[in-house]
Amino acid sequence: MIIVLHPKATRQEAEEILQQIREKELKPLYMPGSERTVIGALGDERRLGELHLESHPSVERVDPILAPYKAVSREMHPEDSVVKIGDVPLGGGGFAVFAGPCAVESREQFAATAAAVRAVGAHGLRGGAFKPRTSPYSFQGLGLEGLRILREIGDETGLPVVTEVVEVADVEAVSEYADAFQVGARNMQNFRLLTALGKAAKPVILKRGMAATVKDVLMSAEYIVSEGNAGVILCERGIRTFEDGTRNTLDLSAICQFKEYSHLPVLVDPSHGTGKRAYVTPMALAAAAAGADGLLVEVHHDPPSALSDGAQSLYPEQFERLLRQVRRVRQSGEA
Amino acid sequence: MIIVLHPKATRQEAEEILQQIREKELKPLYMPGSERTVIGALGDERRLGELHLESHPSVERVDPILAPYKAVSREMHPEDSVVKIGDVPLGGGGFAVFAGPCAVESREQFAATAAAVRAVGAHGLRGGAFKPRTSPYSFQGLGLEGLRILREIGDETGLPVVTEVVEVADVEAVSEYADAFQVGARNMQNFRLLTALGKAAKPVILKRGMAATVKDVLMSAEYIVSEGNAGVILCERGIRTFEDGTRNTLDLSAICQFKEYSHLPVLVDPSHGTGKRAYVTPMALAAAAAGADGLLVEVHHDPPSALSDGAQSLYPEQFERLLRQVRRVRQSGEA
Amino acid sequence: MIIVLHPKATRQEAEEILQQIREKELKPLYMPGSERTVIGALGDERRLGELHLESHPSVERVDPILAPYKAVSREMHPEDSVVKIGDVPLGGGGFAVFAGPCAVESREQFAATAAAVRAVGAHGLRGGAFKPRTSPYSFQGLGLEGLRILREIGDETGLPVVTEVVEVADVEAVSEYADAFQVGARNMQNFRLLTALGKAAKPVILKRGMAATVKDVLMSAEYIVSEGNAGVILCERGIRTFEDGTRNTLDLSAICQFKEYSHLPVLVDPSHGTGKRAYVTPMALAAAAAGADGLLVEVHHDPPSALSDGAQSLYPEQFERLLRQVRRVRQSGEA
Amino acid sequence: MIIVLHPKATRQEAEEILQQIREKELKPLYMPGSERTVIGALGDERRLGELHLESHPSVERVDPILAPYKAVSREMHPEDSVVKIGDVPLGGGGFAVFAGPCAVESREQFAATAAAVRAVGAHGLRGGAFKPRTSPYSFQGLGLEGLRILREIGDETGLPVVTEVVEVADVEAVSEYADAFQVGARNMQNFRLLTALGKAAKPVILKRGMAATVKDVLMSAEYIVSEGNAGVILCERGIRTFEDGTRNTLDLSAICQFKEYSHLPVLVDPSHGTGKRAYVTPMALAAAAAGADGLLVEVHHDPPSALSDGAQSLYPEQFERLLRQVRRVRQSGEA
Repeated sequence: MIIVLHPKATRQEAEEILQQIREKELKPLYMPGSERTVIGALGDERRLGELHLESHPSVERVDPILAPYKAVSREMHPEDSVVKIGDVPLGGGGFAVFAGPCAVESREQFAATAAAVRAVGAHGLRGGAFKPRTSPYSFQGLGLEGLRILREIGDETGLPVVTEVVEVADVEAVSEYADAFQVGARNMQNFRLLTALGKAAKPVILKRGMAATVKDVLMSAEYIVSEGNAGVILCERGIRTFEDGTRNTLDLSAICQFKEYSHLPVLVDPSHGTGKRAYVTPMALAAAAAGADGLLVEVHHDPPSALSDGAQSLYPEQFERLLRQVRRVRQSGEA
Repeated sequence: MIIVLHPKATRQEAEEILQQIREKELKPLYMPGSERTVIGALGDERRLGELHLESHPSVERVDPILAPYKAVSREMHPEDSVVKIGDVPLGGGGFAVFAGPCAVESREQFAATAAAVRAVGAHGLRGGAFKPRTSPYSFQGLGLEGLRILREIGDETGLPVVTEVVEVADVEAVSEYADAFQVGARNMQNFRLLTALGKAAKPVILKRGMAATVKDVLMSAEYIVSEGNAGVILCERGIRTFEDGTRNTLDLSAICQFKEYSHLPVLVDPSHGTGKRAYVTPMALAAAAAGADGLLVEVHHDPPSALSDGAQSLYPEQFERLLRQVRRVRQSGEA
Repeated sequence: MIIVLHPKATRQEAEEILQQIREKELKPLYMPGSERTVIGALGDERRLGELHLESHPSVERVDPILAPYKAVSREMHPEDSVVKIGDVPLGGGGFAVFAGPCAVESREQFAATAAAVRAVGAHGLRGGAFKPRTSPYSFQGLGLEGLRILREIGDETGLPVVTEVVEVADVEAVSEYADAFQVGARNMQNFRLLTALGKAAKPVILKRGMAATVKDVLMSAEYIVSEGNAGVILCERGIRTFEDGTRNTLDLSAICQFKEYSHLPVLVDPSHGTGKRAYVTPMALAAAAAGADGLLVEVHHDPPSALSDGAQSLYPEQFERLLRQVRRVRQSGEA
Repeated sequence: MIIVLHPKATRQEAEEILQQIREKELKPLYMPGSERTVIGALGDERRLGELHLESHPSVERVDPILAPYKAVSREMHPEDSVVKIGDVPLGGGGFAVFAGPCAVESREQFAATAAAVRAVGAHGLRGGAFKPRTSPYSFQGLGLEGLRILREIGDETGLPVVTEVVEVADVEAVSEYADAFQVGARNMQNFRLLTALGKAAKPVILKRGMAATVKDVLMSAEYIVSEGNAGVILCERGIRTFEDGTRNTLDLSAICQFKEYSHLPVLVDPSHGTGKRAYVTPMALAAAAAGADGLLVEVHHDPPSALSDGAQSLYPEQFERLLRQVRRVRQSGEA
C-alpha cells in the first residue's frame, strides 16, 4: 500500500503513521520527496485496511497495490475454472449458449420457445419467473408457477434451466427448481442475496451492474465464493453511458479484464446489452471472437406478443442463424 | 403515445396498428409523411403498453407523451407533500438536517456523536446498523444490536433516527426501532424491498441509484406509494460518471427535476456525493441554495477512528459551522 | 415533428402554434388529450427548426421524427459507400488494416515499423506528425518533418499513409503529403476544421469523440459531406465512461448503429479503445466479427522505446498474429 | 512515482529499471513484496516520464505522485489569482456576472439585451459571433460583423465583452474586438488554439469539455499559462452523463476541486449546464453558495425569437431576480 501524505504533513506525523504500520507487524518504507512524503507498507493490505489511513488528516491519498479480491483472482488460481450448469460446462475452452424468453409467460409460450431453441442447438434454457421491472404497473412474472413450468420444460427437453433470483427468501425455491441462479444487474450489489447464494448448492450467473466497474463485479463474486460456493459465472450485459442509441453500452473489453484478473467463466448477454433485435447477432459474434465462454440470448417464439423485452428478442430462425455463425467464428479461432 | 413506423411499413400494416389502438378503446390518429408514417394514440398509456408496440416489426420507435409514474407526480398532487420523520417535517418550506456516523460502531461512539450533533442543532440522527459493503472483508455493521443502540440514543437525545434497511426480512425489525427507513443507492431498484416498504408504516428515504436517472428514481418511489405508503422522501447522493476526483458526481440539478415532476420532499447527501470531507460543506450550502428540503450528513466524533467512510465524515466542529452557514443561506432565500 | 404542449397551455396558444406551422407551408395536426395537447407537423423538419418552438413558453417538449443528417444517411443512399485511400477500398465488403506507430518519431523508427507491418500484410500506414497531447510537456510530434517522412516511407513501401490533421492551417500541407486525413476524437466537433476538410480532395477518417453519441458523429460527418467531400470513413475508438480498467470503453455496437443509419464505411481503433496491448487483438477480432470494414492499429517496432502510447502498441509479431486471426474470422463470415 | 511490477518480473528486470531511474539522476527505492515488487522514484516526474515505463513489458502499472500541471497549481501559487476582464476582477473574493444572448443575432437584438442586463447590474456582456453548432444547417453566427456589434455595444454600455474563439486564425480579430476570449467545451483540447491563446494579450475563459475531468481542464489551462498568458479563468458548464433530463450534468463539486488544486478563478455556466430556463436560477444560487467567483448566464430580450439556445435563455426580468437572489446568498457567506 502506498500512502501519500499532505504537503504540510510534518516529520512527526509521518513517524506516527510508520509506527502504526509497524504495530500491524507490516514493514514500512519512508520516502521523503521534495514536494510530498510517501510511505510504503508491504504485506497483507486487509490488515492495513484496519488502520483506516484514508481518513487520517495528514494523508492525502492511499493507493492499494494488490487487488482486494482473493478467491476469484487469477493469481490465486491461475487455471481457468470450469463451472457446470446441469451437464453443460462453462469455461475451459467450450462455448455454451443459454436461450429463451425474457419471462416465462405460460406453459405454452415457454414450451414453444424451448422446443424451437433446442431444435437448433441451444445448450440450456433461460426464462424469468420473478421479473424486476422498472414500473410497478408492468408484468412482474408468474413467480412459483413460472418456476414449475421452467422445471417441467427443462425436464421434457433435457436442457438445464437458469432463472433470476431477486430475494433471499426465494433462494431455496429457486434452488429446488432451477439448475443455476441468475443475479440481475440491479441486484449485483445486494450483498445479502450474494451471501445467501454463497451458501447455496447451485451455480450463480452474476450479471454486471449498470454502474459497476469490472473490479466491482469481482468483489461481488468474492462475496459468493468466500461463502463457499465456487460456482460463479460472470456476465457482461452492458453498462449505462451517455449513448442513447442502444439500451446499454455493451463493454466487450470487460471479457479481457475478467480473463486477466479472474479464473471464472464469462458469459455475454447481447440482448440486454443492446436492446435491439438487429444488433444481437453481430454482438454475439463479437463476444465469441473476443473470447467469451458463452452467451445468454433472449429468444421468443413470437416476439410481438412478448409481455416484456419483445424488441430485443430474436425470432427462432434468427437464433438458428446466430448459432450457426457463432460456431464458425469459434472454429476460426481453433484453426 | 407517438408511434413512428419503419420507412418500409405499408399502409396495411399501419391500418392493423390503428385497429389495435381502437380495440383498446383509445383514439388513434394517422399522420402519413413523406419519409415516415406517424401514428398518435390518445388516452391512458398504460393500456397502450399492453399492445407492446415497441416490439412490432413495423414499428421503428415509440415515444410516450405522459410520464409512467402517477401517484408521485406533481400533476396528480400539485402541492408539495410534507412527510414527517418522528416530529420533524420534511418538505413544505422547512429545512431538516439528519446527521451521524456512517455506521453505528458501539454505544459509546454513537452516543458521543449524537450528543455532539444534537448540541449544535441537528434535527435527527442517522447511522447504519446493516451496512452494504463492496468487500466481504469490510465491517458489515452491528445488525440488531446496532438498531437497539440507535433507538436508545434516539430516545435519550429526543431526536428521530433513520437507518438503512437492506432486506425484506429486516423490514419489521427496522420498523420497530427506527423512525424512518433508508433505502441505499444499491437497493434503489430492489423492487421486492420497495414493495415491502410500501406496506410498512414508517416513512422511507429513497436514495438515488448510481446509474439511475431522475425518472428511474420516481418509478421506484411509485412502487412504494402505489402500495399505500405515501411517506417517501427522495435523496440525491451522486451518480457515477467518468470524473474520478470525487467519489460520485453530485447532481444538484436533480433537485430541480424532482421538484418539477414530483410533490415529494428532497434531501441531499453531500457526504456520499463527494466522498471528501472538505467538499461536504460547500455542497451542503449549494443544496440549500438550490431548494433542497434538507440534508443527510455524515459526522463522526472522531473520524480517523471510523470503521467506514471516515474520509468523508465531518468533525463535530465542522458540522456546527456547516449548520450555521446553511441557516444563513436559507434566510437569504426568505428575505 | 411532435410538439407536446405544457399542461396549462390554452386552446388559443395551441392555435397560434398551428398557425405558425401553416405559415411555413407544412401540414399541422391537432391532438388534444386529457392530460396534454400534442401537435404534429409533417414535412421538412429543418424548416420547422426555424420556428424555434423548443423555446416557446407553451411548449414542454419537441421530438423530431426524422434524423437531422441527410447526406450521410442510409435513407438517402441505401447502398454501402466505398471510399478509397490510395488504392485501398474501404467499405463494400472488404477489410483493410492501417497500422503504424502512434507518432512518427524519426525516419529510422517509421521505416522499421512500416517494413514490419508491410511484411505481414498491412494495407496502409498510420503515424502522427502533429500530436494532440494532454500535457504541454509531452512530445508534440515532428510536424512538417514528420509529414515528409510519412510520404517517403509510403512511397518506398507502396502503402498509402494516413495522418492526423489538427488545424485548418495545416489542411493543405497534410493534403499534399498524406493519402487521407485523420480527425482525432478531440477535434470531432471542431466544425471549422470539418468544413475545411469538406473542401479538400482527400478522404477523411473521422474518429468518434469521447463524449459523442453515434448521432453526433453522423452530424459531424454531415459537415464534411455537405461541403462536397463524400469520402468520409467513420471510426469507433472508445468513449469515456466510469469504467477505469481500460483507457476508454470501446463501443462495438456503434458499428451496428453506423451501419443502420449511414452508408459510410466504419473502422475500429482497438488501440485507443482499450489502451492495453493485451486487449488489442481480442477487440480487433470482435470488431471484425461485428461487421467493421477495417482497423486502425498501433504497432511499433520497439514499443518500450515509443515516445507516446507505447503501452497500447503491438510488437510486430503480435500484429502478424492479429492479422492472421482477423483473416480467419472474416472468412468464417463468408463461408 | 510508484512503479508496480508484474508478478512475474524478475529481480534482474527490477534492477534494470532501478538503473534507468538512477541514470535520470533520480533516487530509486526498491520495495519487494510477497505478491508484487514495487519501485519508487523520487524527484521531477516529468524527467521520469521520458523513460516511458508504462510501456515496459515488466511494468504492471505506474502511479504518479505529483500532479502533471505546475503553473496553474495551488502549490506553486498558494494565493488565489485575480484575473481582470476589462475593469472587472474575477477571483479574490468578488463575484462577477457576465450575461447576454447565446449568439449576437443583430445590432438591435444585442443592444436590447445588453441594455436590459446592464440596467439590473450585470458586470459584463457575453455573446457569440462564431458559433460552433452540431448541425451544419443551423445558424453559425455573424462572424466579424458580430464582433463589431459586440465592441460597439460594449463601448456604449461601458461593459466588457467576452466571446468565443473557435480557430487559431481568428485569435487576432477576436483579440482586437473583445475583452476576453472564451474557449468552448468542444475546443477545450484544441491544443493549437490553446497555444495560440497562450501568446495572446487578453484573458481566456476556458470551459470544461463534456468528457473532461477536472485534471484534464487544469492540463489545458497549463497549455495557456505555460505559453505566457496567466489570465485564465476556469468555467464549469456541465459534463455528459447518462442523465437525460438535463442537457448536461452540472458538476458543482468541480468548484471545490478547482479551488483545491489551482489558484485560478472559477466561473459557472448554469445555462449550458442545465439547458432549461427554469433550472438556471437555482443552479446559479447553488454555484454562488458553493464558492464560485462568478457566472456566465444566457439572457435574451425575447427568448422565443432566439436563433439558438432559446430554451435555456432567461427573460430579462428572470435575470434581474437571479442577480438579486445571488447577491443575498453571497452576503450570507460574508456575514
